[in-house]
Amino acid sequence: MRNISWMKLKSLGWLILYGLPLVFFCMRNSHAGDSNGALTFSLSLEGLNVAGNFVWVLMAAFLILFMQAGFVLLGGLVNSKNMLSYMTHCFMATTAGTLIFWLFGFALMFGGSELGSGLDKGNSFIGYSGFMLLGETYDVKTVLLFVFMAVVATFIGSIIAGAIAERMKFSAYLLACFLVYTLVYSFYGHWVWGEGWLAKLPFGVGAKDFAGSGVVHAAGGICAFMGAWALGPRIGRFNPDGSANALPGHNIAYVILGTIILAFGWLAYDAGSTLAISDLRSSIIAANTFLSGVAGAVIVILYYYIKTKKVNVAEACNGSLAGFVAISGPCAYVAPWAAVIIGIAGGLLMCWSTWLIEHKFRVDDPLGAVSVHGANGLWGLLAVGIFADGSYGNVNGLITGSGQQFFAQLIAFLAVIVWAGGLGFAIFFGLKHTIGIRVSKTEEIDGLDINIHGTKCYPS
Amino acid sequence: MRNISWMKLKSLGWLILYGLPLVFFCMRNSHAGDSNGALTFSLSLEGLNVAGNFVWVLMAAFLILFMQAGFVLLGGLVNSKNMLSYMTHCFMATTAGTLIFWLFGFALMFGGSELGSGLDKGNSFIGYSGFMLLGETYDVKTVLLFVFMAVVATFIGSIIAGAIAERMKFSAYLLACFLVYTLVYSFYGHWVWGEGWLAKLPFGVGAKDFAGSGVVHAAGGICAFMGAWALGPRIGRFNPDGSANALPGHNIAYVILGTIILAFGWLAYDAGSTLAISDLRSSIIAANTFLSGVAGAVIVILYYYIKTKKVNVAEACNGSLAGFVAISGPCAYVAPWAAVIIGIAGGLLMCWSTWLIEHKFRVDDPLGAVSVHGANGLWGLLAVGIFADGSYGNVNGLITGSGQQFFAQLIAFLAVIVWAGGLGFAIFFGLKHTIGIRVSKTEEIDGLDINIHGTKCYPS
Amino acid sequence: MRNISWMKLKSLGWLILYGLPLVFFCMRNSHAGDSNGALTFSLSLEGLNVAGNFVWVLMAAFLILFMQAGFVLLGGLVNSKNMLSYMTHCFMATTAGTLIFWLFGFALMFGGSELGSGLDKGNSFIGYSGFMLLGETYDVKTVLLFVFMAVVATFIGSIIAGAIAERMKFSAYLLACFLVYTLVYSFYGHWVWGEGWLAKLPFGVGAKDFAGSGVVHAAGGICAFMGAWALGPRIGRFNPDGSANALPGHNIAYVILGTIILAFGWLAYDAGSTLAISDLRSSIIAANTFLSGVAGAVIVILYYYIKTKKVNVAEACNGSLAGFVAISGPCAYVAPWAAVIIGIAGGLLMCWSTWLIEHKFRVDDPLGAVSVHGANGLWGLLAVGIFADGSYGNVNGLITGSGQQFFAQLIAFLAVIVWAGGLGFAIFFGLKHTIGIRVSKTEEIDGLDINIHGTKCYPS
Repeated sequence: MRNISWMKLKSLGWLILYGLPLVFFCMRNSHAGDSNGALTFSLSLEGLNVAGNFVWVLMAAFLILFMQAGFVLLGGLVNSKNMLSYMTHCFMATTAGTLIFWLFGFALMFGGSELGSGLDKGNSFIGYSGFMLLGETYDVKTVLLFVFMAVVATFIGSIIAGAIAERMKFSAYLLACFLVYTLVYSFYGHWVWGEGWLAKLPFGVGAKDFAGSGVVHAAGGICAFMGAWALGPRIGRFNPDGSANALPGHNIAYVILGTIILAFGWLAYDAGSTLAISDLRSSIIAANTFLSGVAGAVIVILYYYIKTKKVNVAEACNGSLAGFVAISGPCAYVAPWAAVIIGIAGGLLMCWSTWLIEHKFRVDDPLGAVSVHGANGLWGLLAVGIFADGSYGNVNGLITGSGQQFFAQLIAFLAVIVWAGGLGFAIFFGLKHTIGIRVSKTEEIDGLDINIHGTKCYPS
Repeated sequence: MRNISWMKLKSLGWLILYGLPLVFFCMRNSHAGDSNGALTFSLSLEGLNVAGNFVWVLMAAFLILFMQAGFVLLGGLVNSKNMLSYMTHCFMATTAGTLIFWLFGFALMFGGSELGSGLDKGNSFIGYSGFMLLGETYDVKTVLLFVFMAVVATFIGSIIAGAIAERMKFSAYLLACFLVYTLVYSFYGHWVWGEGWLAKLPFGVGAKDFAGSGVVHAAGGICAFMGAWALGPRIGRFNPDGSANALPGHNIAYVILGTIILAFGWLAYDAGSTLAISDLRSSIIAANTFLSGVAGAVIVILYYYIKTKKVNVAEACNGSLAGFVAISGPCAYVAPWAAVIIGIAGGLLMCWSTWLIEHKFRVDDPLGAVSVHGANGLWGLLAVGIFADGSYGNVNGLITGSGQQFFAQLIAFLAVIVWAGGLGFAIFFGLKHTIGIRVSKTEEIDGLDINIHGTKCYPS
Repeated sequence: MRNISWMKLKSLGWLILYGLPLVFFCMRNSHAGDSNGALTFSLSLEGLNVAGNFVWVLMAAFLILFMQAGFVLLGGLVNSKNMLSYMTHCFMATTAGTLIFWLFGFALMFGGSELGSGLDKGNSFIGYSGFMLLGETYDVKTVLLFVFMAVVATFIGSIIAGAIAERMKFSAYLLACFLVYTLVYSFYGHWVWGEGWLAKLPFGVGAKDFAGSGVVHAAGGICAFMGAWALGPRIGRFNPDGSANALPGHNIAYVILGTIILAFGWLAYDAGSTLAISDLRSSIIAANTFLSGVAGAVIVILYYYIKTKKVNVAEACNGSLAGFVAISGPCAYVAPWAAVIIGIAGGLLMCWSTWLIEHKFRVDDPLGAVSVHGANGLWGLLAVGIFADGSYGNVNGLITGSGQQFFAQLIAFLAVIVWAGGLGFAIFFGLKHTIGIRVSKTEEIDGLDINIHGTKCYPS
């Protein structure tokens, strides 16, 4: 007992030893922008407009955070012996991911964008101001942007978690995600959203990705593909003759519930990405998002019904997610009828790419994350260039008779394939050949939960 | 393999063949109202007021959509072998239902209401403008109304799903819901909310149904009754001597969780139905809704405790839903003390009508949807005419000494019984005697999930 | 059958006999403040500002209500045979708790605060106006405050439910919570939030507790400790030699899902506690809350990994809740870097106090409510006095070189220990020695659900 008290005292000592300099560093660097809003708000038209933006962006951000509940519930598609493992991956993406975003992700992505006080240093390629919200970024408007972008940044790890589920080492997942966050997401995000080179392309109005078809979903889905490829398939997924076995999940109710949660958040995410209440396009964005998601679901129900005479609701959930992913990029620029078409195409693309990945590439993607996020994220980037009708932000797609914007989108499309594909390949295969990324065969058969987390997900 | 590629190519061909004319039709008809909000918003008092409405209505709509997560979780009351079937019904109501609402439901319901740009054609009986949000309805304000009303429209199918659970053919459910959406909901909704004849009754201020006690719940609940009646009871539900057996559900935790989700959304639904931030009555609406729901729950706990000496939390969940349904119509017009009374009466009415439906009518309603939505929806319509205190919208109930409004409510009450009852009867019994609405005995015993959906809800 | 009808008629008679006088009483006393907002709103800068506050506060209140879904899901940590019991406790806290708050809790807490129309009678110690929202409190602004505070008030019962789970009599729980609500929460809440003596302390700017570290969490957690202590441990929790056994829960997926739901609501709760859109500090509040919660989770993952070489995600959930509790009080007054430190300290404090309560006090707290809410609520009160940087509300903590505010916080800290500790002790031990608070040994072994609720949570 005395030992324990002594150890506690000692660790308290270490904490203080390491913590105090940090505190002093932070205190010395926390001179602020407008940290209480007194300079930003006044009881004026401008002031109320800004105050309205705060309500809108914060509420949207809260709903986006809630989408992680949807992500974890998609774990209904994995074996119950690996449920905790999958959920913990998403949980770490949300928690550790947010700390990383606070430490430097936000600075890399939005430094130099001039989108808020203190975000002044950076170039077309990368940003380098806004670390830890110190200095001039301790400002109500900058922090508003931080909150919104921090919850969005948690997604990329959860997307990857779906493809690498049931067989990856925990430490390797953490490390891989850290590298993807830092090298893939922060950079590509900076190029598109942080006023980087893709945003400044001299075609159309530059590459446009309203709510992240490319930045979030294509980037995440492509890295997810690399992860699943590097890992190899789960035991029993493919037969020696190359044919595939479906490995059943454990709770489809979770999947449906998770999809509804994601739908809920997605509407807020897309509409909230206006970041401004003065932008009344938000209603059309919400309608487009909703219509694309439901169209994706209905077409997939039809597709599988024709193919198998069964009503495949789990795939329909993925179909609706495919629709949501595909519309994320173009949601602001297209008309509702186009959103329905984008969703239908998204659902079918999900079906076809699932088939392709499984039967041609023989890559094992337990949740279909590559098809849902990767393939449809890419489709969403192009869809901007096709269906944008010119009614918003001067973005004119092919249907208006102009090919300029499509060209910009194509460059963004190729950039994400090259950047996320190349780095994703390097990260996952690099880790595979150094620290190793796959759990042992025994661990995989017993289930990751009991080995890594010390308990089953459903203990009693 | 070549076969598959060829089939894919062929189906792609068909898609384009059918899709392209649609695209051209839509493009030609997508001249817009104010499709980016530039005419609607200006940095002025009026402009900020409108922008505030967008935030309010959109956020409320997102939360209303989330209520479907509550609906699917009420499936905890069905046998686990039919869980996917029940959830898929709700899922189709949300997805296919929204496409239908976009195609023509919105036009039928709000055409001629003049509630937004392009909603100009229609009469007291039915509307006929606003199809597919084309033409002048491609307008930020009209689409805002669409988003709110589209998520509300998904409910009617989910209400019916509760009463017909565990024994209905999937195709028959889809067809029945399609007909109910089109013939029952769109029409009655138009009469009350789309400036139809019930809204224009020359008694009081016309029939009032603030957030759908009648339009959504009574109409849905009455059709649900017809469906459950036409289907007949589940195997084993009633004994040959006419006495009833309780068929246990599989997860009461889901039911409680679902009820809390519904409560969360319901507050937003009722308060958001103001559709305007300038209407500060929203706080009293939220308080009334909350109080009625909790009063319904508490009285049902008491009722069953007195009757059985058990704390029946599943019924208490239905009690709170009964309170929410009953207050939906009157939420804006009554004082908090009246909301408590409406909720208490709603909870007791739920208990008594459950008993009536089970023991007198011998109709099998697995989730109690008829009692919760039907009986209490009707009660809510009348409660407006009783408890409205005149403080809002000039609606004066019996407690103010005036009988005019009560008379208007009575007509709306009778109209929904006749219209939803008559058409609901025709739809469900018509389908019963043509395509058939009930699964085979074997399918019912094996469970619908494995037969219709090809998998169990909890596979491993 | 005739008997039943007669009984129904009779009970209807009783209802009317008791109900009618209540109705008359309410009608006579429902003269209103501004009950439809016509006096409060005008199309002016002031009017729009107020209307924005309604949107903000109502949306936040809805999300706070949803946090109860998170609380019930934490029941994944109890044995499945007691899941309904735990969930029903939270359910009663929400439903019956809200009725109590409407009847008199709100009046006790906010009477005399002058925070809304009709809240004029009260003193530094307790309030006594605003009962049942009658009279002048039937006012849109007062009711807005009521809605926000009613959903917050539901928490205290749910906090207690976590510590007394799996062994408490239902009636004793109801009675204990009723007393805690009335005597502990209403009073202490009045002192801090209702302009009582703690708010008016002549040190710093008076005791500050922005979103309830003290009022909600410390008060609730301390009472929870008294309840768990009075009840004694669950059967099998401690061995005769004093060593402890971990009693496994039944669904860790619920725990993770519940934690994400709580996180979602918590951000809205803290940011919404500004109660005003003009207060742009809301963005920094949201960031602080988020950062503290994720820091708490990450440090607990690390702590348990070092200790056990396992990734303990269930404890990490509690770690994040600890971070949220700790930041609730200081969220508005500190900088993001300090929020991270507060969260890290909160997570470690949770680990250490769990160890202390289990191994030193030998008190059995199934969900760790005492560590999460009690210990961290107290820490949050002090953290205001340490880390407040003076940028908001003129609250200056020790890091600014001033000790005044810390002294005020210390008094609030001591007050909650004495008041909640003393009364909590009296309530739980008083009930123990009168009506008895613990179920019989047989009931505990069989599970509370089947005995008290007449069904298992997972029947089939």
